[in-house]
Amino acid sequence: MIDFVFQNPAKMIFGKTALSHLGEEAVKYGDKALLVYGGGSVKRNGLYDQVIAILTENHIQVWEISGIVPNPRLSRVREGIAVCRREGIGLVLALGGGSVIDTAKGIANGVPDNGDVWDFYMGKRTPKKALPLGVILTIPASGSEMSYSSVITNEDGMLKRGFNSVTNVPTFSILNPEWSFTLPPYQTACGCVDIMAHMMERYFTLVPHVELTDRLIAAGMKTILHNAFLVMANPTDYDARAEVMWTGALAHNTLLHTGRVGDWGSHKVEHELSAEYDIAHGAGLAIVFPAWMKYAVVQHPAKIAQFAMEILDVPADFGDETEIALEGVKRLETFYKSLGMPTRLSEAGIFGVDYDKLATRALPTEDATVGAYIVLHNKDIVEILKLAQ
Amino acid sequence: MIDFVFQNPAKMIFGKTALSHLGEEAVKYGDKALLVYGGGSVKRNGLYDQVIAILTENHIQVWEISGIVPNPRLSRVREGIAVCRREGIGLVLALGGGSVIDTAKGIANGVPDNGDVWDFYMGKRTPKKALPLGVILTIPASGSEMSYSSVITNEDGMLKRGFNSVTNVPTFSILNPEWSFTLPPYQTACGCVDIMAHMMERYFTLVPHVELTDRLIAAGMKTILHNAFLVMANPTDYDARAEVMWTGALAHNTLLHTGRVGDWGSHKVEHELSAEYDIAHGAGLAIVFPAWMKYAVVQHPAKIAQFAMEILDVPADFGDETEIALEGVKRLETFYKSLGMPTRLSEAGIFGVDYDKLATRALPTEDATVGAYIVLHNKDIVEILKLAQ
Repeated sequence: MIDFVFQNPAKMIFGKTALSHLGEEAVKYGDKALLVYGGGSVKRNGLYDQVIAILTENHIQVWEISGIVPNPRLSRVREGIAVCRREGIGLVLALGGGSVIDTAKGIANGVPDNGDVWDFYMGKRTPKKALPLGVILTIPASGSEMSYSSVITNEDGMLKRGFNSVTNVPTFSILNPEWSFTLPPYQTACGCVDIMAHMMERYFTLVPHVELTDRLIAAGMKTILHNAFLVMANPTDYDARAEVMWTGALAHNTLLHTGRVGDWGSHKVEHELSAEYDIAHGAGLAIVFPAWMKYAVVQHPAKIAQFAMEILDVPADFGDETEIALEGVKRLETFYKSLGMPTRLSEAGIFGVDYDKLATRALPTEDATVGAYIVLHNKDIVEILKLAQ
Repeated sequence: MIDFVFQNPAKMIFGKTALSHLGEEAVKYGDKALLVYGGGSVKRNGLYDQVIAILTENHIQVWEISGIVPNPRLSRVREGIAVCRREGIGLVLALGGGSVIDTAKGIANGVPDNGDVWDFYMGKRTPKKALPLGVILTIPASGSEMSYSSVITNEDGMLKRGFNSVTNVPTFSILNPEWSFTLPPYQTACGCVDIMAHMMERYFTLVPHVELTDRLIAAGMKTILHNAFLVMANPTDYDARAEVMWTGALAHNTLLHTGRVGDWGSHKVEHELSAEYDIAHGAGLAIVFPAWMKYAVVQHPAKIAQFAMEILDVPADFGDETEIALEGVKRLETFYKSLGMPTRLSEAGIFGVDYDKLATRALPTEDATVGAYIVLHNKDIVEILKLAQ
């Protein structure tokens, strides 16, 4: 176990009655809010109307940034910052999933800052403070409702970049599993893959003596493996939706990271893929992660074999460490396929990939690296993409 | 899963270098601190001197409340409140384990309050705010370094009472597993029992569909079962001490409680025992919890059988549900005994207990109850104490 600092002050309000707390939380931050959301679904299912009614009852004036799309764009962040500054808004409210929340985070960080908000995403500067951020979560996937992270795509060059900061942790998050009942199966599946990936990025570590966090991560992964089937089979199964939603928040709130070094190579590779082809992040991860694992097994089979045995029940006498690990990858792919996810680029309709272009965009120089379980240079990313074809 | 609100803003600073953060954290809260500690051990092992040196370097003037004993007394809380008010102190610093931290919590809550601090412990009023509280943890056991809880004994009638409040959550906690190297084996063992008990109180619930939190609690319990042996065998095993220390904090920070109803009947019974006989809380729990389980099995064997199978590896074909559950209790007692803990009152040198007196002090009226997995009236407490004799 390595030394660490852990703090996550987000107030998590969870369950069927969660939305009833919105008014009392929102009024703490003044009488003007910016509501950030996507589009159709929250209007169709009535959630948008409920939120507006509660804010109105509580005498909170609302401005809106709507139409946020997957792989959310920097221009919308800039637009939100301008509205907040012009109107003196004190609270940013995200109504939706990861794309909406990450946009709201960009806005909340940008408002009190004097420079360019994109600097934060490029790692040039770190934010000192942010506007309070409230989240009303409809899609369990990104973990952004409790995370330090925000990921935004700059249309200028289609650069998809993220940054971690305590200023990204929401002030409060409101989670009702019922809001995920009407998600299309594809989006439900993508969410489960994303949640698994947040835990896998942390599970695959070379740090020894991480028994508690290994076990905690395994607890989360087994919960997803089990409940993903249940929510796919019965989208209105409240209990299974609740397990997925709460696991999704805990998967990425940094608790599972304590005392460890995560990898995050697969996320880096996937970000280039979804920035280029605009596929869903979860689908991209279902393609990239098995390829990454096959590549990583060559250098470090041990933790992947442990994953195979503990999470996917590969018997200890299945073969040598590498064989056990590769059988684990196979079973993981089977799980993804059972959810209707692609596990190859071709299955997502992606052909003729310019490997060098994507690899160079991820790591612009030969010296640049990403990852910790295995250290990737851009030539390694080319090989991983080839394994994913 | 039931609806819940979860928030724990404590800043947890963990590891060999953790103390190096003390200065930067402490100076945020002014230039006057009250240092609360026990006595001999932190002076013997040099930790007291290190803390004083860091505070002095950071120009923080220090007042002291020392000689805090197990089952800490209300009079010391009152004493600390008076010092803080008189001197205009802005930070309470606890250096020690649960008794020291709980005393510091009482002080921190009492200072800005106009009434009697004991009201909080008697459930008559709830605190609105508290002084910032910093913890330097030497004994993993109580979980008070990250918990909502403070337990104090009023010498007037030897009433041991606790209360939960967000104002009890430390502002920051500094944890270095090395500080637990020199704990006497008995205290190490008591700590492991206490940590297990915090998870067991939450594990035994009648709330259905709590898969993730069941798995998270199991992760913590298995980590303690495994590492308790390691720290008893080798007190300077850093990695094992670290597993115990971090599990101890997470066991009681309310995360494992999300979506569930805990029981806490065993804690209530034990509080009367340790208030009367001044035995260590951990030793008291090793006596009371198996007795509580034997009593609870009659009404609700299911979750105790699940505990037996998942945590203590009782085979599923061992017998019927009750037989599996009771075998689990037997194995738990074997675990406690292997740590040198008593599992009967007689083994702790306690004879001739006035059952009615203790039961009536815990629950003064026939209508009063405690517990949720099984609801205890004072006559039930008498039966549990008889099973523990």
